[in-house]
Amino acid sequence: MVNVQETIASVRGFRVAGVHAGLKKDNALDFALIRSRNDCKTAGVFTTNKVKAAPVLLNMERITKNPEKIRAVAINTVSANACTGWQGMDNARKTSDMVAEQLEIATEQVLVMSTGVIGTHLPMDKITKGVELSVEHLGHDWGATAAAMMTTDTRPKFASVKVMTAHGEYTIAGVVKGAGMIAPNMATMLSVIVTDADLTLEQTQTALKTANTQSYNQIVVDGDTSTNDMVVLMANGMSTTAIESDYDMETFQNALNALTQYLAQAVVRDGEGVTKFVTLDIQGADSDESAQKIGHTIAASILTKSAFYGNDPNWGRIVAAAGRADVPFEPAQTSLWITTGEEIFEEDYGLLIFKSGTPTDYEEANALEIMADDSIYITLNCGIGDGKATIWTCDISHDYISINADYRS
Amino acid sequence: MVNVQETIASVRGFRVAGVHAGLKKDNALDFALIRSRNDCKTAGVFTTNKVKAAPVLLNMERITKNPEKIRAVAINTVSANACTGWQGMDNARKTSDMVAEQLEIATEQVLVMSTGVIGTHLPMDKITKGVELSVEHLGHDWGATAAAMMTTDTRPKFASVKVMTAHGEYTIAGVVKGAGMIAPNMATMLSVIVTDADLTLEQTQTALKTANTQSYNQIVVDGDTSTNDMVVLMANGMSTTAIESDYDMETFQNALNALTQYLAQAVVRDGEGVTKFVTLDIQGADSDESAQKIGHTIAASILTKSAFYGNDPNWGRIVAAAGRADVPFEPAQTSLWITTGEEIFEEDYGLLIFKSGTPTDYEEANALEIMADDSIYITLNCGIGDGKATIWTCDISHDYISINADYRS
Repeated sequence: MVNVQETIASVRGFRVAGVHAGLKKDNALDFALIRSRNDCKTAGVFTTNKVKAAPVLLNMERITKNPEKIRAVAINTVSANACTGWQGMDNARKTSDMVAEQLEIATEQVLVMSTGVIGTHLPMDKITKGVELSVEHLGHDWGATAAAMMTTDTRPKFASVKVMTAHGEYTIAGVVKGAGMIAPNMATMLSVIVTDADLTLEQTQTALKTANTQSYNQIVVDGDTSTNDMVVLMANGMSTTAIESDYDMETFQNALNALTQYLAQAVVRDGEGVTKFVTLDIQGADSDESAQKIGHTIAASILTKSAFYGNDPNWGRIVAAAGRADVPFEPAQTSLWITTGEEIFEEDYGLLIFKSGTPTDYEEANALEIMADDSIYITLNCGIGDGKATIWTCDISHDYISINADYRS
Repeated sequence: MVNVQETIASVRGFRVAGVHAGLKKDNALDFALIRSRNDCKTAGVFTTNKVKAAPVLLNMERITKNPEKIRAVAINTVSANACTGWQGMDNARKTSDMVAEQLEIATEQVLVMSTGVIGTHLPMDKITKGVELSVEHLGHDWGATAAAMMTTDTRPKFASVKVMTAHGEYTIAGVVKGAGMIAPNMATMLSVIVTDADLTLEQTQTALKTANTQSYNQIVVDGDTSTNDMVVLMANGMSTTAIESDYDMETFQNALNALTQYLAQAVVRDGEGVTKFVTLDIQGADSDESAQKIGHTIAASILTKSAFYGNDPNWGRIVAAAGRADVPFEPAQTSLWITTGEEIFEEDYGLLIFKSGTPTDYEEANALEIMADDSIYITLNCGIGDGKATIWTCDISHDYISINADYRS
């Protein structure tokens, strides 16, 4: 059992800052910097959108060429620097040049992340100020760092795990921003995970890929995929606790999985206008991939999300969404349960509503009571194989529409 | 130029009715019947959802076995008879048995359609009443027929085309219901097209398939696909105007295309909570199929739809949606224009906002003025091939959420 803390004390060798560079109004934090004293083994996962923002392209190049030399990540909000052509790429490079100069490292050791409106150029005067201020304020304020990444997020999201092993201890800590366009969103899903554990590059890459598959890839706020999404894992080794045996690696992986799941779920909970947290437990699909597709299709269905919002046990919309996921699906083999909460215990899936293709004679009042909860657990067993997936999602509310109709104003 | 009429005078040999069977409250029409005096050559297109409602399965079987003998279609609202197992199938058959008995035809000559909530059984006492009343009231009231198909639709949708040829005239007429879950929706897209032209079965099938591809398949309200969608074309030949030459067939096809496009667009205009009609003109994709996928992805994006609702020229969301359509796409080759209206003339695409991967220096005020119109025309040229598609869609408003959060109550 991994104990995820909602705070970050410190991670050896890392210093961070979140400052006001003037991108947002009212002195809100809008520029963040994360810096390691040593070179980091670094792995990244990037948006699958064919429209990739300039910082995504730049980081992909740098992590490929110098995966063992990365030292810093600079992050701005308000402008996503996506769909900005050569000038956008130039601005991303210039940002990293400034960070490198201030930190006295090479520009190739700097990553940059942007989030905000697509199609606007970075205001370089404000970015310059952000770089200067953030270097000046480097310290341990992870809360300010997470706050400085926010767009329509309502609260900073950060957490850490401290791991004790027979041959030493280490910490893994992470910050994330999300909100809408999660699967992931407009405002983008950005996450930086750092650790002072001593990993090889290969371990770093494997650990991030595995963790990402069961955390950030399993959340859906609105089904849109941003041009800017990325997650990086930086390991600076400064705890000198090496990950050597398979058991060590398993311990590290479990801790990283728990941390990223916590952060991913925090993104859903803080989704734009969200009033309900919904867990979709898909079982019995013909493969894990099919289960994932079914879960994503249900989670991205506006109709299903509207029903969640309205406390409506309109389970037919869930089954109908599963039916259009474009994977093998047999209604006559399918059963559906609903209950409250975020986990189920001892395979008690709750109220059986639909059994082998036919509605049961469940009491509508019981279903209504469950759907009125702010945390709903839905189990869909497709009855045709062993494929499974767990997806975390939310409802769609009037506030979502308001937020996204007004985002740029 | 085909002249689509917003009325239906009569179509030889067809009688119709829309009655109140007690499914809806307040004497609202809720049961429809369409009957031909002669056997009809009949073609159908059905939902691709793997969860198919009982009436869909029944009609697929009947149109396959007896494509030249169909005589009647009975349609009920309120209950979709989907996810209802063997009992649902039994109820669909019983409905057709009653219609057949009253009309003194074989049950295999009867089609049935249902729309409404998924997972509830047909109330057979009310269905019985609907059959009796509708047979009693058979006549020419197409408006009542279209009204009796409605769920969350706000107005009946029906139209006709009269075609004059050198060797005689004929009429094509159609009714449609839609609203939400269009692509198509919850409440389902159902359409019945009838004609007194004298077509062969093969002509009927080809004509419907072609017409459907450029009409009902090109509209997106919310991106959900219903368990109940279907479109049928019934040709009873009673005008004795045969479709013989290629020219005759082309004339018929053009008329049917215009009629189905008119009806499809009427569905978008009457979409749940719609305040804007949006035309997406996708050009330069690597194939027509890719263009269609790009258009559908943009049209189904909640973020893009929210921006339409907010009059927000947030074109980055459009390009980002195109980038996740899972087809070849090169932002650096892509350009985007916006203008008002539902058609463009002389290739005047309006305001160029994004050119070959970079924002132009367009005036924000001009873009805002265009987006504030209730009819927007967006041209996206992908710059990599000859593939094209036109998609008709709409915004998502607070009313959509309200309607779908409350649908069952």
